[in-house]
Amino acid sequence: MRMRKKKHREERLNLCEDYIVNDFEKIKDGVFNLFDNENPIYLEIGCGKGRFITETAKLNPDINFLAAEKNLDVLLLAAEKIKNANIKNVKFLAGDAGAFANFAGGKEFDRIYINFCDPWAKNRYAKRRLTHKNFLEIYKNILKDGGELHFKTDNANLFEFSLNSFADFGLKMKNITLNLHQSGFEGNIMTEYEQLFSEKGQPIYRCEVVF
Amino acid sequence: MRMRKKKHREERLNLCEDYIVNDFEKIKDGVFNLFDNENPIYLEIGCGKGRFITETAKLNPDINFLAAEKNLDVLLLAAEKIKNANIKNVKFLAGDAGAFANFAGGKEFDRIYINFCDPWAKNRYAKRRLTHKNFLEIYKNILKDGGELHFKTDNANLFEFSLNSFADFGLKMKNITLNLHQSGFEGNIMTEYEQLFSEKGQPIYRCEVVF
Repeated sequence: MRMRKKKHREERLNLCEDYIVNDFEKIKDGVFNLFDNENPIYLEIGCGKGRFITETAKLNPDINFLAAEKNLDVLLLAAEKIKNANIKNVKFLAGDAGAFANFAGGKEFDRIYINFCDPWAKNRYAKRRLTHKNFLEIYKNILKDGGELHFKTDNANLFEFSLNSFADFGLKMKNITLNLHQSGFEGNIMTEYEQLFSEKGQPIYRCEVVF
Repeated sequence: MRMRKKKHREERLNLCEDYIVNDFEKIKDGVFNLFDNENPIYLEIGCGKGRFITETAKLNPDINFLAAEKNLDVLLLAAEKIKNANIKNVKFLAGDAGAFANFAGGKEFDRIYINFCDPWAKNRYAKRRLTHKNFLEIYKNILKDGGELHFKTDNANLFEFSLNSFADFGLKMKNITLNLHQSGFEGNIMTEYEQLFSEKGQPIYRCEVVF
C-alpha cells in the first residue's frame, strides 16, 4: 500500500509505543511475553490500516493478536485505531513475513491471516508472493501443528497460484470459495480494501489451509 | 445434454456394435477383455458427442479409452465418429458413472476424465454431482493407486464444490487453474461445449487429482 508519509509520524508512533514492537529482535525468541495471559496467539501478516484486526480482536477477546505491517505510515493508523478503542489483545510488529524466517520461538501461533497481499503479478517475482513455498516453510515453523492459514484475495491469478502452492506443499485445504460474499460464509470481517472491491462486484477468493 | 431422438437410431447403433458395450453386465468383472493389448486404460465419464475422446485417442495410440455416455443419441454420434475415423483404441459404454458402483474388476483404470458434467446447481441435488464424495469413492475403487482424475468445467460453483470435495476426501490436487485458456496449459483438447463457452470469453476451470 502506497501512502504519503504521515505528519508527526514519529511522535504519533511514540504515543502508541505500548502497542508496537519496532524491532523484530525483541521478539525473535518468542512472542509469549508480549501478552499477560496464555491465550492462543493469531498473527496477521500485512494488517494495513487495521480494520480487520480491530474488528476481529473485538469479537475474540480470548485470543491474542500480533499484526505485522512493514509500512510505518499504515501501521500508525492501525495502532491508533487499537489504542483509541482501548483494545488490549492486539500488538503490532513493524515488519513483514520475511522477518519470521529468523524466528526462534518455535511453534507459537495458532493461526495466520493473510488478507489481500501483493499479488506480484510477474512470474519473476513469484518468490515474493506470500503463499510461495518459501513462505509456507516459514509458516510451518511458527504455526502449531494443526494451526491454520486463512487466506483472502481478490486476485484470481494469485489465488490459483496459492491453491497450487498449498497442494504442492502437501497441505490440506478447506472451505475454499471462489466468491466469498455469495458463498454463505458467516462471520467474514472485511478489510478496507475488500469493501472497495466487493462493492464493485468483484469476487473475493478465500480458503483455509491446515498445517 | 438434451437431444431429439436420432432417426434410425437402432440401425445405426447396430452398425457400431463393435465399438459399443450396451450392457454394463458385460464388463462388470473387468474391462481388460475389451482391448487386444495390455496398454493403460483411461475412462471418460460423459463423453457427449465425442470430440474430446476422438482427438485424445488419435494423439495417444498407446492408450486404450473407454468412453461412457448414458444418452444413446449422443453416444451414437460419438461412436460413428470413432468408426468413421477407423480408430481402434476406443470403446464406448452405454451408461453413466453410477454403473461403476457395481464394478468388480478392481483397479483397472489409469485415468478418469470428467469434462463439463451437469453442475446440478441446487444443493438438494449435490449428491448427483460427479465430484461428490460418493462418486470419489467409486473412482477410488476403479483407479489404480496414483491414478488421476482430470476434471474440467465452466461452472464456478461446481468447481468450488469439487475443490472442497477433493480436499475433504484427502486427495492431492495439482495443476489447478481458474482460467484454462489463459493459463499456458499445453495440450488441452477442447470438447464441443468448451469451444462454445470459451468463445464467449467465459473462463474454464480445470484441475488434476491424484488417487
